[in-house]
Amino acid sequence: MAKVLTTRSENYSQWYNDLVIKAGLAENSAVRGCMVIKPHGYAIWEKMQAALDRMFKETGHQNAYFPLFIPKSFFSREAAHVEGFAKECAVVTHYRLKNDETGKGIIIDPEAKLEEELIVRPTSETIIWNTYKGWIQSYRDLPILINQWANVVRWEMRTRLFLRTAEFLWQEGHTAHATADEAMEEARRMLDVYADFAENWMALPVVRGKKSESERFAGAVETFCIEALMQDGKALQCGTSHFLGQNFAKAFDVKFLNREGTLEYVWATSWGVSTRLMGALIMAHSDDNGLVIPPRLAPLQVVIVPVFKTEDELKKISQTAEKLMAELKKAGFSVKFDDSDNQKPGWKFAEYELKGVPVRITLGPRDIANGTAEVSRRDTLEKSIIPLDSVVREIQPLLDSIQKNLYQRALRFREENTHIANTYDEFKNILETKGGFISAHWDGTVETEAKIKEETKATIRVIPFDAKPEPGKCIVTGRPSAQRALFAVAY
Amino acid sequence: MAKVLTTRSENYSQWYNDLVIKAGLAENSAVRGCMVIKPHGYAIWEKMQAALDRMFKETGHQNAYFPLFIPKSFFSREAAHVEGFAKECAVVTHYRLKNDETGKGIIIDPEAKLEEELIVRPTSETIIWNTYKGWIQSYRDLPILINQWANVVRWEMRTRLFLRTAEFLWQEGHTAHATADEAMEEARRMLDVYADFAENWMALPVVRGKKSESERFAGAVETFCIEALMQDGKALQCGTSHFLGQNFAKAFDVKFLNREGTLEYVWATSWGVSTRLMGALIMAHSDDNGLVIPPRLAPLQVVIVPVFKTEDELKKISQTAEKLMAELKKAGFSVKFDDSDNQKPGWKFAEYELKGVPVRITLGPRDIANGTAEVSRRDTLEKSIIPLDSVVREIQPLLDSIQKNLYQRALRFREENTHIANTYDEFKNILETKGGFISAHWDGTVETEAKIKEETKATIRVIPFDAKPEPGKCIVTGRPSAQRALFAVAY
Repeated sequence: MAKVLTTRSENYSQWYNDLVIKAGLAENSAVRGCMVIKPHGYAIWEKMQAALDRMFKETGHQNAYFPLFIPKSFFSREAAHVEGFAKECAVVTHYRLKNDETGKGIIIDPEAKLEEELIVRPTSETIIWNTYKGWIQSYRDLPILINQWANVVRWEMRTRLFLRTAEFLWQEGHTAHATADEAMEEARRMLDVYADFAENWMALPVVRGKKSESERFAGAVETFCIEALMQDGKALQCGTSHFLGQNFAKAFDVKFLNREGTLEYVWATSWGVSTRLMGALIMAHSDDNGLVIPPRLAPLQVVIVPVFKTEDELKKISQTAEKLMAELKKAGFSVKFDDSDNQKPGWKFAEYELKGVPVRITLGPRDIANGTAEVSRRDTLEKSIIPLDSVVREIQPLLDSIQKNLYQRALRFREENTHIANTYDEFKNILETKGGFISAHWDGTVETEAKIKEETKATIRVIPFDAKPEPGKCIVTGRPSAQRALFAVAY
Repeated sequence: MAKVLTTRSENYSQWYNDLVIKAGLAENSAVRGCMVIKPHGYAIWEKMQAALDRMFKETGHQNAYFPLFIPKSFFSREAAHVEGFAKECAVVTHYRLKNDETGKGIIIDPEAKLEEELIVRPTSETIIWNTYKGWIQSYRDLPILINQWANVVRWEMRTRLFLRTAEFLWQEGHTAHATADEAMEEARRMLDVYADFAENWMALPVVRGKKSESERFAGAVETFCIEALMQDGKALQCGTSHFLGQNFAKAFDVKFLNREGTLEYVWATSWGVSTRLMGALIMAHSDDNGLVIPPRLAPLQVVIVPVFKTEDELKKISQTAEKLMAELKKAGFSVKFDDSDNQKPGWKFAEYELKGVPVRITLGPRDIANGTAEVSRRDTLEKSIIPLDSVVREIQPLLDSIQKNLYQRALRFREENTHIANTYDEFKNILETKGGFISAHWDGTVETEAKIKEETKATIRVIPFDAKPEPGKCIVTGRPSAQRALFAVAY
């Protein structure tokens, strides 16, 4: 079987691109920086959405939908926000086209210029807080706990499928609260929801913590994040949750009458994850044979492949396979029996490995005669022959085992690739020779972080919640530091 | 209880707007023509999405996602399509903003002008067929059965919440086939899916048929539609399915090698329904007290309201109510027990009527003493006292009865408001005095239809599939006609 992917050791970046294309997850479109999410990729995203949406609803949130367009002036209202978001964005200036009088297709109608330009939303804090102003009068109207599933656009110059695209899909939660404590609690709660999702659904261990000032969301008082390590030793931010203080309430003049009868600005949070998680999922678990999907997010969990030479053999195998498929479906698994006759079994094996189906059941004439089935797991590629009548009850434990193994493998990888540096030389040396997360002391200043970034490309990914207080000295300036931060080169 | 809505007889249009706002379904946003879909409205839309998505998947379709932006030149490729769609649309001309040097906020960066303008998709045939070109080589790659859930933008000058907005949410199916017959079959199949959804989920009787040439989708060979009648006697198009022939395949040069080994253009369909269905749902069933939602689409099916004077009474009622709620939830219903003490029962009754909750269970001290509950249905506002221990088993039959009654009521209304006109005078007279659907003979020309529209505002809504062949004479020109078409003034 010819390998269809560049291997990870050859060229990790090329391997990723090959995989995304060959597994049918996504492709570049005719529009610069915008991707087409293909059915297999979208099916995984739908599984992610369903799990997250359920978690959001269980924590009291409702979905709603706000406009795609934001008046340009809205961005100028919050000083930090405009710096961070109003730069690289898609600007709508006209609302009509007309036939070119010279007969060369269609042109913009100069008569149809908008009075105020509209920005295609890069994030929706401004339009949402402008809306909340009409919804909030008193503490009785609070909290407002809303989430939106939407597309957003940030004009990126260098794009990569799923990881960085001009248009991407995401969810953005926007909540309004009567007190700072309640908003802070919400921001932390949603970070925990993200971590729970990453670890228990994506099988991806993440570090929870807060961002340094330079990596903070534009307009936030505090940004919390979950960070994961990819197989090439680079970090990937998987989700952020922001405590926005009263910044947006002040920018859009949103006050409420509190229990004491005085007017106060409302407290806010926002939080989001995007199709970038698809990139994390792909890079965290996949191998040189293709995609590896954690069973809980696999659109197809089990594939049954017949191995046969004659029509008659296929007929016999099909009887058993159809019965098995019906039983598996009844037990709640998603199953496909691939009896197509235009490809050989070997081709099918490679194809389903490429696509990441967690479990393959192979049935040949000998299996039918012996009452057995060959069961292969995608994570380790191990095969075993088991009695046919035990297949149905073996599948759930097998899927659980794969889910667990993927998490454990990724956790072990992260542990092996998290290093401690006590000097700047050590820090640079680790970056050059090993990569991964580096735990180091830092003096807490923007300047030092900028210097490290400029000299090594590494940034502070996260200041972990669970870091033990450990006084030390900044690896660059020698100034005192209260705890270590986690650095890495990041996607 | 003060009425919060304008009544239908006073001003139907105002009643609709009041209802959408007061029931918390949607509101206008700061961006002209774009709406905010509020949580209650979005929750109903989610129920619609879930049902439709399941039906699409059961008929073999997969979801995918294509770019929001379409290069301007793509629209010029299909002659009819550009006339229909490339006119009133949002045009992105720039990709960056910068700080105004005079310090007055932010302005467009003139350096960041796009080489080719991008259109915010009004529909996605062009970008999708440009993509399909890369996916299709031979008959083995067909059919492609894809659906997309997305937002689209059509710059409307006169907008109304849900019914006509600049941005709206929808799904658009785009399929590719090896033969004309197969594509035609698909277009008809999806129209049947829409009709099934409208009738069995929305409780909305629809007429299935095809559009006349003037009402056909821009780029289609044939447009099929389902049409419904609203309470004010105006028609509303609820969904369309198009047989596109080879028009888009030719425009984007998409050919395939057929079984005979020759190159042929691919055959296409597209089909869509949008948040406009929310408008249809609201207008078809609701009354002067508020929204009426068919139980199968109600986010909240049952509300339990306690009637009490003292804390002690509430406590006793709560015990019963909590137990009842748990049992109803276990039986699969969505239920809320509203024990808030800041509003009186009368206010709550009005509120849940306004929001359209199908069933209300009222529990007072006497009910607790007698072991009874008062059950009210939203459609007829009828109340009955039933034994508490029979409530759980009574709910499903009651919801079924409401669902059925809403359909029957709407069907009866449509039947009473469908008239036959045999002369143009009769036609005009019915329009002026009664409204509704008018079944009339027409000579099949665009000119006659245009004349009727100009003189009466009525258009041909649908040429019904089930119309019996009945030779007659066009009410305007007297020329021969093979069957009647259904006319109406439409939303």
